[in-house]
Amino acid sequence: MSLPSQVRLVEVGPRDGLQNEKQPVDTETKLELIARLGEAGLRAIEATAFVSPKWVPQMADAPEIMRRLERRPGVDYPVLTPNLKGFESAVAAGAREVAVFAAASESFSQKNINCSIADSLARFEPVMAAAQAAGVKVRGYVSCVVGCPYEGDIAPQAVAEVAGTLLAMGCYEVSLGDTIGVGNPASTRRMLDAVFKRVPPARTAGHFHDTYGMAIANIHAALEAGVAVFDASVAGLGGCPYAAGASGNVATEDVVYLLDGLGIETGIDLGRLVETADWISARLGREPASRVARALLAKQRKQGCTP
Amino acid sequence: MSLPSQVRLVEVGPRDGLQNEKQPVDTETKLELIARLGEAGLRAIEATAFVSPKWVPQMADAPEIMRRLERRPGVDYPVLTPNLKGFESAVAAGAREVAVFAAASESFSQKNINCSIADSLARFEPVMAAAQAAGVKVRGYVSCVVGCPYEGDIAPQAVAEVAGTLLAMGCYEVSLGDTIGVGNPASTRRMLDAVFKRVPPARTAGHFHDTYGMAIANIHAALEAGVAVFDASVAGLGGCPYAAGASGNVATEDVVYLLDGLGIETGIDLGRLVETADWISARLGREPASRVARALLAKQRKQGCTP
Repeated sequence: MSLPSQVRLVEVGPRDGLQNEKQPVDTETKLELIARLGEAGLRAIEATAFVSPKWVPQMADAPEIMRRLERRPGVDYPVLTPNLKGFESAVAAGAREVAVFAAASESFSQKNINCSIADSLARFEPVMAAAQAAGVKVRGYVSCVVGCPYEGDIAPQAVAEVAGTLLAMGCYEVSLGDTIGVGNPASTRRMLDAVFKRVPPARTAGHFHDTYGMAIANIHAALEAGVAVFDASVAGLGGCPYAAGASGNVATEDVVYLLDGLGIETGIDLGRLVETADWISARLGREPASRVARALLAKQRKQGCTP
Repeated sequence: MSLPSQVRLVEVGPRDGLQNEKQPVDTETKLELIARLGEAGLRAIEATAFVSPKWVPQMADAPEIMRRLERRPGVDYPVLTPNLKGFESAVAAGAREVAVFAAASESFSQKNINCSIADSLARFEPVMAAAQAAGVKVRGYVSCVVGCPYEGDIAPQAVAEVAGTLLAMGCYEVSLGDTIGVGNPASTRRMLDAVFKRVPPARTAGHFHDTYGMAIANIHAALEAGVAVFDASVAGLGGCPYAAGASGNVATEDVVYLLDGLGIETGIDLGRLVETADWISARLGREPASRVARALLAKQRKQGCTP
């Protein structure tokens, strides 16, 4: 099986990651994190979310983040916008790319955003229309693509349906999320085979969680299937909101290590990325939740290379 | 690609794992660990090593372990025996299966056991002869099969050479070890393709370290290539001796989670295995170094299922 020669990584640490961290992180630290990630070579950095500060206090500084962001040439800074109000605030603050999300599981949709999948998709219609009018790119997320904390296994066809609808509504890319990390290379492949009947591989991204340590194997399976865009979170920021103490988003540095080893170009400097993982983890008062960061930092410390 | 329908796991926690733990573990705890692993369904448990207590004080109780071991029917309890003296002590203490080891890297062999690869293999000749005479099975380990801490990449041909020699000397199985965890699915596959020219897939085992988080992906690649035996360490016991603070042996529960997900039979009860991981980790004063154990334990605690 031939693998893609290049992969685009979408860094979700500053949004998906920090949103799920218990400690509040100040705006200065968030801005520095985004800047460091850009310096490490990330070309897509999900910067924040325009959501109700009542529900997600961690993202209350979204307008300030977008206004103060130092944009690097060639780097996209998408933001999450669950509704038209969020979209309008995001664009007013300077956002040029947004993301919307729907679940592949009916129960998860009800419990997470309090409406059916169909209703959640309908809610994005005004966002899509406004985005098209404003020339703003929209990325779609689908959650629970292989399993759901309430329903268990999710039918690949259900994922294909939601992903196909998001594409038809105007999303330029659909990110397929194994939100609770229960996938394996076989279930990932079955899900992708179904999705590819509705969405071409080049319009898909993989969003894997490492809750059960399967993320890297699933990313490899997705690469073999033709996926060339992956979401990841520096230092594994975010943990797993459905099992406190467990891992969540796959760590960006683990993904880069895999891709480097496979000879796939990412444009990312692993050393600088690990420094960033170390720095933000220290700010949060812990070790990076990433095998690669821990191994490389331990090696450096042993060799006396780190300050 | 078709995967094997059954996989045999060789649990190396009580030996390879505890040998690399800083804290000494008392004999009672080791015996209880071995018993619990047998109850969880492991059918091969590497119990101890007959090595010089001067060099490896953690294994000084090897004779007592073997004498007091409660053998479960159908379970093998191999022990590591680096030389004839160790072999004789092992057999005297009741061992019925032993393991010998060689490196695929000349520098690693020199630095780790202070002799060339050829000399290390020659040293096993009397062990092999004595084992054959005594009807004792011998397993062979090859270390550094994709990378070496001193030499970097290792040529697949060098691994094939050592593995083929071990098979020819009478080993019933050769375990291929990515000792420093630097392999990826592609380098693992290249190594296996070379080895299979000298050793049939059915006589090989995979021994992966999770130092850089690649172990599960590499195991999946090895499964696809036809390997159906894997070494693993409960709770990821052992860490990485070449980068303190980093991961070492892949955790048995992570491997079982993968295999369960792929529908591959192991005969192992994941719940009991995770309980064992939790128990031995508590004895060592830490959390299990396994994503699966952490996720399942966090979930249980949240649901109030654990005592």
